[in-house]
Amino acid sequence: MAKRVVIVSSECFCVILLLYLCGTVICVKYNTGASVMPGKLNVHLVAHSHDDVGWLKTVDQYYVGSNNSIISACVENVLDSVVTALQRNQNRKFVFAEMAFFHRWWMEQTPQTQAQVRKLVDASQLEFINGGWCMHDEATTHYIDMIDQTTLGHRFIKNQFNKVPRAGWQIDPFGHSAVQAYLLGAELGFDSLHFARIDYQDRAKRKVDKTLEVVWRGSKTFGSSAQIFANTFPVHYSPPRGFHFEVNDNFVAVQDDPLLFDYNVEQRVKDFIAAAITQANVTRTNHIMWTMGDDFQYQYAETWFKQMDKLIHHVNKFNFVFCIMIRPDGRVNALYSTPSIYTDAKNAANQLWPLKTDDYFPYADGVNAYWTGYFTSRPAFKRYVRILSGYYLAARQLEVFAGKKSTLGHTLDLGDALGVAQHHDAVSGTAMQHTTNDYAKRLAIGASRAEAVVSSSLNCLTSKRLGVQCSAHASAFSQCQLLNISYCPPTEDSIPQRKSLVLLVYNPLGWNRTDIVRIPVNDANFIVEDSSGNNIQTQYTKVDNVTANLREFYVKAYVGLSPKQAPKYWLQFQASVPPLGWNTYFISDTAKKGKSRNGLPSHLNIQKNDIIEVGPGNLKLSFSPESGQLIRLHNSRTGVDVPIKQSYLWYNSSDERQVSGAYIFRPKAPPNIVSRSVPVKIIRGPLVDEVHQKFSSWIYQVTRVYKDKEHAEIEYTIGPIPIEDGIGKEVITQMTANMVTNKEFYTDSNGRDFLKRVRDHRDDWPLQVNEPVAGNYYPLNLGIYIKDKKSELSVLVDRATGGGSIKDGQVELMLHRRTLYDDGRGVEEPLNEQVCQHDQCQGLTVRGNYYMGIHNLGAGSRWRRTTGQEIYSPLLLAFAHENMGNWKAFHVTRGTVIDPNYSLPLNVALITLEELDNGMVLLRLAHLYESGEDAHLSTLTKVELKKMFATKTIKQLIEVSLSANQEKSKMKKKTWNVAGDKGHESEGIRGGPVSNVNLVIELGPMEIRTFLLKF
Amino acid sequence: MAKRVVIVSSECFCVILLLYLCGTVICVKYNTGASVMPGKLNVHLVAHSHDDVGWLKTVDQYYVGSNNSIISACVENVLDSVVTALQRNQNRKFVFAEMAFFHRWWMEQTPQTQAQVRKLVDASQLEFINGGWCMHDEATTHYIDMIDQTTLGHRFIKNQFNKVPRAGWQIDPFGHSAVQAYLLGAELGFDSLHFARIDYQDRAKRKVDKTLEVVWRGSKTFGSSAQIFANTFPVHYSPPRGFHFEVNDNFVAVQDDPLLFDYNVEQRVKDFIAAAITQANVTRTNHIMWTMGDDFQYQYAETWFKQMDKLIHHVNKFNFVFCIMIRPDGRVNALYSTPSIYTDAKNAANQLWPLKTDDYFPYADGVNAYWTGYFTSRPAFKRYVRILSGYYLAARQLEVFAGKKSTLGHTLDLGDALGVAQHHDAVSGTAMQHTTNDYAKRLAIGASRAEAVVSSSLNCLTSKRLGVQCSAHASAFSQCQLLNISYCPPTEDSIPQRKSLVLLVYNPLGWNRTDIVRIPVNDANFIVEDSSGNNIQTQYTKVDNVTANLREFYVKAYVGLSPKQAPKYWLQFQASVPPLGWNTYFISDTAKKGKSRNGLPSHLNIQKNDIIEVGPGNLKLSFSPESGQLIRLHNSRTGVDVPIKQSYLWYNSSDERQVSGAYIFRPKAPPNIVSRSVPVKIIRGPLVDEVHQKFSSWIYQVTRVYKDKEHAEIEYTIGPIPIEDGIGKEVITQMTANMVTNKEFYTDSNGRDFLKRVRDHRDDWPLQVNEPVAGNYYPLNLGIYIKDKKSELSVLVDRATGGGSIKDGQVELMLHRRTLYDDGRGVEEPLNEQVCQHDQCQGLTVRGNYYMGIHNLGAGSRWRRTTGQEIYSPLLLAFAHENMGNWKAFHVTRGTVIDPNYSLPLNVALITLEELDNGMVLLRLAHLYESGEDAHLSTLTKVELKKMFATKTIKQLIEVSLSANQEKSKMKKKTWNVAGDKGHESEGIRGGPVSNVNLVIELGPMEIRTFLLKF
Repeated sequence: MAKRVVIVSSECFCVILLLYLCGTVICVKYNTGASVMPGKLNVHLVAHSHDDVGWLKTVDQYYVGSNNSIISACVENVLDSVVTALQRNQNRKFVFAEMAFFHRWWMEQTPQTQAQVRKLVDASQLEFINGGWCMHDEATTHYIDMIDQTTLGHRFIKNQFNKVPRAGWQIDPFGHSAVQAYLLGAELGFDSLHFARIDYQDRAKRKVDKTLEVVWRGSKTFGSSAQIFANTFPVHYSPPRGFHFEVNDNFVAVQDDPLLFDYNVEQRVKDFIAAAITQANVTRTNHIMWTMGDDFQYQYAETWFKQMDKLIHHVNKFNFVFCIMIRPDGRVNALYSTPSIYTDAKNAANQLWPLKTDDYFPYADGVNAYWTGYFTSRPAFKRYVRILSGYYLAARQLEVFAGKKSTLGHTLDLGDALGVAQHHDAVSGTAMQHTTNDYAKRLAIGASRAEAVVSSSLNCLTSKRLGVQCSAHASAFSQCQLLNISYCPPTEDSIPQRKSLVLLVYNPLGWNRTDIVRIPVNDANFIVEDSSGNNIQTQYTKVDNVTANLREFYVKAYVGLSPKQAPKYWLQFQASVPPLGWNTYFISDTAKKGKSRNGLPSHLNIQKNDIIEVGPGNLKLSFSPESGQLIRLHNSRTGVDVPIKQSYLWYNSSDERQVSGAYIFRPKAPPNIVSRSVPVKIIRGPLVDEVHQKFSSWIYQVTRVYKDKEHAEIEYTIGPIPIEDGIGKEVITQMTANMVTNKEFYTDSNGRDFLKRVRDHRDDWPLQVNEPVAGNYYPLNLGIYIKDKKSELSVLVDRATGGGSIKDGQVELMLHRRTLYDDGRGVEEPLNEQVCQHDQCQGLTVRGNYYMGIHNLGAGSRWRRTTGQEIYSPLLLAFAHENMGNWKAFHVTRGTVIDPNYSLPLNVALITLEELDNGMVLLRLAHLYESGEDAHLSTLTKVELKKMFATKTIKQLIEVSLSANQEKSKMKKKTWNVAGDKGHESEGIRGGPVSNVNLVIELGPMEIRTFLLKF
Repeated sequence: MAKRVVIVSSECFCVILLLYLCGTVICVKYNTGASVMPGKLNVHLVAHSHDDVGWLKTVDQYYVGSNNSIISACVENVLDSVVTALQRNQNRKFVFAEMAFFHRWWMEQTPQTQAQVRKLVDASQLEFINGGWCMHDEATTHYIDMIDQTTLGHRFIKNQFNKVPRAGWQIDPFGHSAVQAYLLGAELGFDSLHFARIDYQDRAKRKVDKTLEVVWRGSKTFGSSAQIFANTFPVHYSPPRGFHFEVNDNFVAVQDDPLLFDYNVEQRVKDFIAAAITQANVTRTNHIMWTMGDDFQYQYAETWFKQMDKLIHHVNKFNFVFCIMIRPDGRVNALYSTPSIYTDAKNAANQLWPLKTDDYFPYADGVNAYWTGYFTSRPAFKRYVRILSGYYLAARQLEVFAGKKSTLGHTLDLGDALGVAQHHDAVSGTAMQHTTNDYAKRLAIGASRAEAVVSSSLNCLTSKRLGVQCSAHASAFSQCQLLNISYCPPTEDSIPQRKSLVLLVYNPLGWNRTDIVRIPVNDANFIVEDSSGNNIQTQYTKVDNVTANLREFYVKAYVGLSPKQAPKYWLQFQASVPPLGWNTYFISDTAKKGKSRNGLPSHLNIQKNDIIEVGPGNLKLSFSPESGQLIRLHNSRTGVDVPIKQSYLWYNSSDERQVSGAYIFRPKAPPNIVSRSVPVKIIRGPLVDEVHQKFSSWIYQVTRVYKDKEHAEIEYTIGPIPIEDGIGKEVITQMTANMVTNKEFYTDSNGRDFLKRVRDHRDDWPLQVNEPVAGNYYPLNLGIYIKDKKSELSVLVDRATGGGSIKDGQVELMLHRRTLYDDGRGVEEPLNEQVCQHDQCQGLTVRGNYYMGIHNLGAGSRWRRTTGQEIYSPLLLAFAHENMGNWKAFHVTRGTVIDPNYSLPLNVALITLEELDNGMVLLRLAHLYESGEDAHLSTLTKVELKKMFATKTIKQLIEVSLSANQEKSKMKKKTWNVAGDKGHESEGIRGGPVSNVNLVIELGPMEIRTFLLKF
């Protein structure tokens, strides 16, 4: 034993560090203090744990480490043990991304631990990267949600640590979007973006060309002014093989104690250098990054750091004597690093970098493995997220208008739940069923708390008691989340004596707006009065059986209530609401009122043998009398006239080795048509014509053409998808227009920019086409369009949806999918959604809308942008049963918070208005058009804040970064040498500084500007 | 989020603790500071990790966490993370047992960490329990090895921490021995002993009677003066079901954050209380122990402590306000505890405790699951351990005599390896094969270093250059570890011109000794001269083919050398050596010397049709001329005459649901006889008669009867056991004497006390006999005997061996076993030992000896005790080729370090003599007889140290505890109320204090006294 002491002592490597606080002398065994060394191959060890905000387990289960029978993972362990490990050695570093987890953990720590963690953050040992609530998906997320969830995390980091994340860390999402690169990257102030998943063909070529690392300009409009250094990992976000050091895993530990058997340090150092050189061979500069982590790793962080300490020490093999370095040796320099340090080193290298534009979609990790199924997976959940996204925006507006102190409820839980839902296994539809249920539960809880905000805010806002502090009224208004299946107790219930059904309609858009309101009622004798007392036109339509059956089953399954008999009618009327304002409608029983109703019931109209034309306004749709199918769209005002067919088809999900599943779309063969001939029912009315088509027992479609709208609204009801034949099915709607489109089509990026797509083609490499359908699918959040020399055919969606143009003139959307096998990407469940009411289960039925418009060439974008906003932010309806007279006496029935003569320009949207805890108000305004997109609207535009906040005085205005965590004026940008840079490329037009006097905000095309206001 | 902060704050439970060092205020969330509370059910949470010193992996693999594909376990993680976890909360406690691991870890720590750990130990947060090098087995270990390995650990703890372990912690060994309780328990100063494994029938009864906890008096001789409080766990050494909190395991975490889903703290507290009450129902007093750990648990200790923190807080639910406790509540008090705290509480309860005597063997954990196979498993390894145990004792003696500074090599590694080998999965034979190989490798390395000590010590010791500091001579002597298979290069090689083969014989016993030396030679013309120049009688015997074949195969397989032709002869002569002294013999070629040899070759003697009687001395063995089998033993001097048969048989290992395996002995049916008729070869000579019997192609036996010994030495060679028939076999030798034994027989406890066994009976409960053979097997380390009214038949063993008396008059030993299935106790290998030479593998062949003696009633013990010592400590042989004249000129050829006229009394053995690092010498003397065992020798006896260390002056003598970690005079004993205690029971006779003047040590029967001497 004596001998051992001696040998260990001589091996012991002591660095004397003066701890500035205590003056304690620490003797550490390993020298791990290496920083970047010029002239060597620098291996940046980036210690990280990839902690999915829900996937195989729920977010809480992952956090506390329960349900470990599914998978062993506990984020609390990660954070506890990382903090301890960092404290043990001040050279160690760790990066953490997911604030949904970190925030949970932080709230549970003692003030003492919090102080220790703050020290680690200040010392750059613990660095927050990405820093959003989650690592959001990039295909199925809306840019407003991406901004919101990022802001939530960045605000927490700023408040608690006064830090601003510098690196984008989207290591796992399944493909990467242009909006991520330029908006959720450069515009956040990030100077780098790191990820693992790009197309396997793309990666192969980039490894040969050393173009894995690029400067990415994701925006056509902003070009080099919104670029980011983007680092694609050569393999995955795990370490090189053999350098994975998780507790209880089977790894070869570095053994440098010659007294123990299996001493192997020389071999391990050799392995390390070999792996480093392999990576250096595909990487520019002498800096490579090793992602030292993986999913939920660092359960006991010391296991990783202990090995890395030893590797750094032995690979570098410096000898230090009292802090003076002697005898450096070897080709490789290993160091604890972070993406920021790595990016600084890359930037300092002054290398020429390849240019990347557009995006990294679709993603395939093998010949038949296109991750394009998840663009559509779990369509009902995707819709729920999108509905609540718009609702969250509206609720926060109302909260600001009423004043946070005056409202009941809060929007925090909804913001939290939405933040969680943006995770790349949440809204993507790739989580396990029980986890998805948990996401939905969180959203529902959040929504119910936000409903209280909306209800009490509306109450405050409409109250006439001026000067008196508005006090929240708990039960002011009901709202109906299940209107789409005709479930809405306040409208269905009979109205008490002397009372009316008061319908308050709020418009979250900055423009005046006229829309059809549609509510289920049990009587066709109601009259509707507007706020001025005018009877307005109504239309009654019978509630169809498909809807009634959905209502019966789903109210029981989802609400747990046995609903009454389905309501008989849909009552429709046109509501007109000022920008950021409200209007009130009073619905009363004609019998009680003694007035006659001003509306007509819709009437059935079935013509025989003639072409069926529908549409009470300019847009006309023609249907074949033989097949019952759409054959033509024609706009009598613009003269656009396009022959077009629309059908439902389904792809047979492959059951070969690579099957279709939650992630992957692998169709077996060309799609099968659901029916070539469809029974049609036409219902005409003064406000809207409806075409009801039953394509099969499980596909029902209602096409609505409104008098005052120039598009068709198509409501589909799909499901339960039959699987009794043992075949998984992926259901599409296909629109085939008589247009010559040369393989080209356009899809949006996260609902914002439109990107040109060319079938069977990628700009970055010569595509080998193995999956002619799946490989041409793209994610849609706003929509898709095709054009020829005359016309544009546009389709907008109400949720994230996969789609493409597989043949010229054709547009298809995948609306629903149900598969029988797991596709082998980890979730280990087939995507087979079922809904159960007690023991009775059936496949999920999905109901939704898409919107079709035809325009002359160049005129489509205005419709797409405006309608897109209307879809995202529908009119918000609130109901009460009150005496109309009393109501009017105490309430403002129609109003707005802005100057009554003002509305936002048509090319601007208010995308955030939120009161913060410190009383400041967060304002985000977005220009809706890309440069050159519209002849008139793609221009510098102005918002007059004085008019927008007519009732308030702005005392202070600070322009901040997109996530509001730093002053815009203080943001720094790195410069990069980019291959082929012409130096005079467009950088877009941006608005100038905002004068504190006139408070006018200029916005250039696609510009989003973020402000903190103090009233 | 704001809301969350508020709620968490109000939940936060702050205790303000002043850290005496820094004055820092720590705010902890949970109140975990509970201590024992009278009037409540106290649940003592004892946090522990059971870390096998090798089993499924090697000790190094377990330490560093390599080879995790077999099992995930890393002791380094346990210790790293426990230390951190203890530092996080000063109320947390942890106990650790295995110093082989702790010592490895300790050597790798920085001085800073060592200082922190010392603080934890001083604060009683980290407590060493057991504290030996390993948790030794209790069935297959020799008491000297148990003492040595415990001393090794206790010395480390004493040196580094100045602490003395208080608790025995033998939680996993497979049954518990009397010697463990009284010697390695009470005599160490332990006041409690804790374990899990006792017979399932015994446990069931004890749960009903509440007698799981007892006061155990393991020694008939010492009775209450060597008693210990013994706690048998009600289930196992793991926590109650559902309270297992290992990282990555699937457990239900306590969730007390109402903001997270799955909040469950009330349910978990209910579960805790229910489990506590269940255990309280089988336990005396209001103290119960929960063993919060399991095999290699606490890989990330925080996971356990985090849950225990919460449980203690919520179960106790005190409210503290600035350290003042208010409102205690509930029936149960949970606390961090240790076996010491628990034992103090038990002792303070002043309860009447049941008395336990004898031991807890054999152990069964089910109806057909007697863990009695491991008494014999891996017999070759068991023998290797035993050989080196004796060698270690001798080497340390020599090291003391020569002076540690003068010797090459060291005995540390052998001590370490032997310490490791005592582990309950090492010498027990229950480790995996690769781990067993590792144990053997460690022993071999240790042995080779100890050989250098022996060689250089002998050189120093015999050197005539008095006054000159002895300098170590590297190549002084060769030694032969494979003598038993006739491999010994220095005796086989031809002796160079003018040189002789110098054979130095060392006697590690304290008595003068005469023994036959047997060495392989290639010439039958050698003469042997003793140190006085006398030609002494020799006997040459041809090396038999069985031995030659073994030599050929095993030298290749084990040494990696292709040996020369097997030597032709065994040369035997009688050596006579003084106590703790040496003698030198010179073996020379007659041709060269011109003298004629004084020995005769042995001659074959096969009589026909007469009874064959062999034995050149008093003992005569008779063999049947028909069957060739032994039929009678007769001592012409004492007149004892016993008809006796001896046969080999094998049990058919069960292949039913519970099979026979490394642990378990489950024979299928009565044993099968190997052969009823055996070819016999008789070889007679002047010194020894040999009877060679070939029982089968795989069992060969040589019985040797020496002229000057009154016992038969039986050398068996068994193997490879044939398994081609698909049947596992467990091979026994069975001696059937014509004696009436009334089911009674006697077996030793760890080679020390003899315990009376009664077939099919247990004193503590009415035995239900399900396994009439396996359930009557006991571990033998010294031997077994039976007696009737006239005679005693004794059999002594050379290693740990299972045996019993299955029929009256019968004694059987299980000598070898080979099974085809794993017996389901974790090792997951069949016990199928193979030896390979390149690709050629065969089942292991085992060679060994047992010794049979017959005596008049009452006379057997003297033979057993004396012969037992001779078997344990054989003559140590060292060889050199030197010129006899030169040799004699420079060497003392015969001598001793003690007074030449002194020898130790026949009832005393020197069991330890060792020079410590600080220059002190550790001396242990053992009285060899139990009270009443022998009419003359079971008496108080004396050792005169002045005569024993005749050449040195003793400056200081301190009597210490058995493990030498505390002064004997300062040891404290707890008193216990024991049921049925008569108050005047024998406590044995113990020697009085040692006068510093005359330095005479008195020893009472069975007394072992330990001293530290300074010369």
